[in-house]
Amino acid sequence: MQKTKGKQSILFANPPVVTGTANIGGPMEGQGLLGDYFDHLMEDNLHDLSSWEKCESYMLEQVIKTAAQKSGGDMSDIDYVFAGDLLNQLMSTHFALRSLSRPFIGLYGACSTMALSMIMGAITVDGGFANKVVGAASSHHDAAERQYRFPTELGVQRPPMAQWTVTGAGAAVIAAAGFGPRITAATIGKIVDLGVKDPNSLGPAMAPAAVDTLWQHIQDTGRQPAYYDMIFTGDLGSVGKTLVIEMMKEKGIDISDNYEDCGCMIYKEEQDAHAGASGCASSAVVFCGYIYQMMTELKLNKILLIGTGSLHSPTSYQQKESIPCIAHAVAVEI
Amino acid sequence: MQKTKGKQSILFANPPVVTGTANIGGPMEGQGLLGDYFDHLMEDNLHDLSSWEKCESYMLEQVIKTAAQKSGGDMSDIDYVFAGDLLNQLMSTHFALRSLSRPFIGLYGACSTMALSMIMGAITVDGGFANKVVGAASSHHDAAERQYRFPTELGVQRPPMAQWTVTGAGAAVIAAAGFGPRITAATIGKIVDLGVKDPNSLGPAMAPAAVDTLWQHIQDTGRQPAYYDMIFTGDLGSVGKTLVIEMMKEKGIDISDNYEDCGCMIYKEEQDAHAGASGCASSAVVFCGYIYQMMTELKLNKILLIGTGSLHSPTSYQQKESIPCIAHAVAVEI
Repeated sequence: MQKTKGKQSILFANPPVVTGTANIGGPMEGQGLLGDYFDHLMEDNLHDLSSWEKCESYMLEQVIKTAAQKSGGDMSDIDYVFAGDLLNQLMSTHFALRSLSRPFIGLYGACSTMALSMIMGAITVDGGFANKVVGAASSHHDAAERQYRFPTELGVQRPPMAQWTVTGAGAAVIAAAGFGPRITAATIGKIVDLGVKDPNSLGPAMAPAAVDTLWQHIQDTGRQPAYYDMIFTGDLGSVGKTLVIEMMKEKGIDISDNYEDCGCMIYKEEQDAHAGASGCASSAVVFCGYIYQMMTELKLNKILLIGTGSLHSPTSYQQKESIPCIAHAVAVEI
Repeated sequence: MQKTKGKQSILFANPPVVTGTANIGGPMEGQGLLGDYFDHLMEDNLHDLSSWEKCESYMLEQVIKTAAQKSGGDMSDIDYVFAGDLLNQLMSTHFALRSLSRPFIGLYGACSTMALSMIMGAITVDGGFANKVVGAASSHHDAAERQYRFPTELGVQRPPMAQWTVTGAGAAVIAAAGFGPRITAATIGKIVDLGVKDPNSLGPAMAPAAVDTLWQHIQDTGRQPAYYDMIFTGDLGSVGKTLVIEMMKEKGIDISDNYEDCGCMIYKEEQDAHAGASGCASSAVVFCGYIYQMMTELKLNKILLIGTGSLHSPTSYQQKESIPCIAHAVAVEI
């Protein structure tokens, strides 16, 4: 493969295999639309631990170990773990990885982390630097709310376009050989910021980044959106999803038939999640559960997962900055 | 290259070239021991910007652009940027990359980020996925102090083993071809936590991680420490450095003749930095300035840079957790 100037995409020469995945959710995720597509479900958001952050670490540790087992091995087979979460200094990831004791690369892509971890994992495997790696990501509703917005105990009313941070985690084992869908291509995103400043409105902030990466993917690979059975964005929610469809229409491409947002797939209407799900776990639990199962059952053969991340911080918000966003796309085919 | 189970190290088949580097520092760094080895020096820690975080973004943007120019090109040649900083949600990195508009992978390795970004960059280049990438990292004394410990305005007395977070940034261009030292090997670390809980004592917390990675590097590559003209750790400071020498002695290896810590190389005794320098910028400014120049002048031919990162967060400290640490090693030879 020869890198061409200006391109942001990779076509893998020996597409790495996703040999196993695992996911976990909390009670709200279990009662949602994809409740049947979880490896583990917790009865509450603490799981008898002393903090939400520790519960998030527990979730990440569980899915990484389970994914390694479902790939027919255990943690000792895993050369490297690529992982991240939303918390300051990746707190949950670091404490999970402390227990797992495997070589580790910390990624921060906010809610795009699952796709980013799969891309970096695939680069490392296809480049010949590893036989088996894990890509993983997590988020926890209560830990994220108190860090980014308000402690949940305050009961602050959420605006209609707010989304609900998913409590959950997902992990995918990416290997040089084995059975399963393969990572065939990836597009690494640039930061896009059209000036949205409201941290309760992340879907609209992230939609232009998703469109930028999807458009770049089409230019670089020559694959039209119709090439894929389904295109999934990570956590744009209903408002952001509508914007993506409209922005692509403006470019002359109608993706309304084979495009869905993971953030719109997790909760039922009556669960009152407002504009949908968000958080690193949004795309992580959907890809590592529902999508992966649909692919192994050959109900989906070619998908493009576009992880979407809002890269603001509470400090940048207080300093009146707008919200920089990014999207990374990974193509998986069987 | 065939990956062997249990190994954490990579020997690059076509060692990527570090074709150019750039660094920047604040006034204290300019007055320090390596004041002559900076591309840019700021007259104060704000550089006429409205916050320390924005000043840190400015620094990162400057070094990335300057490194691209010093490599005989400009930003349009750069396929991907791998970068990170210490701030929550990598605030400084994201705003710098927003301006630079290049495909971007966010890394969080705390103060190990410079070495980690070079390793991930080298994997991407040697794997054939890019022609030219940038690895970069930054930190800012005042932004880090108020986030991790106390606002500097409070004037809280610092204990003798505290270190001084460097205000600065460094960037290295890593290319498939060109002139310069080459990245020949890398060792990706595991998280090590021996139970240190004091965030004012990060050198001793990180020293065991540095030793773990150095020891693994020796086992995996067969290169003894004497293979290198110099081994540099990132920011252990005087206390952590002494511990590394002692812990290696216990393993039967004396590295006291060819080992130094970047944290002990930046400030003069009279600058009252206590146990030395710390922060992502510690190893970043030393590698991208002094070390790189020594290598291009052939005064150093083979070096091992061991980036050391303390992965705690203020939240984990408040939850009475100990400090998980990591170290990533990158070998550079000319």
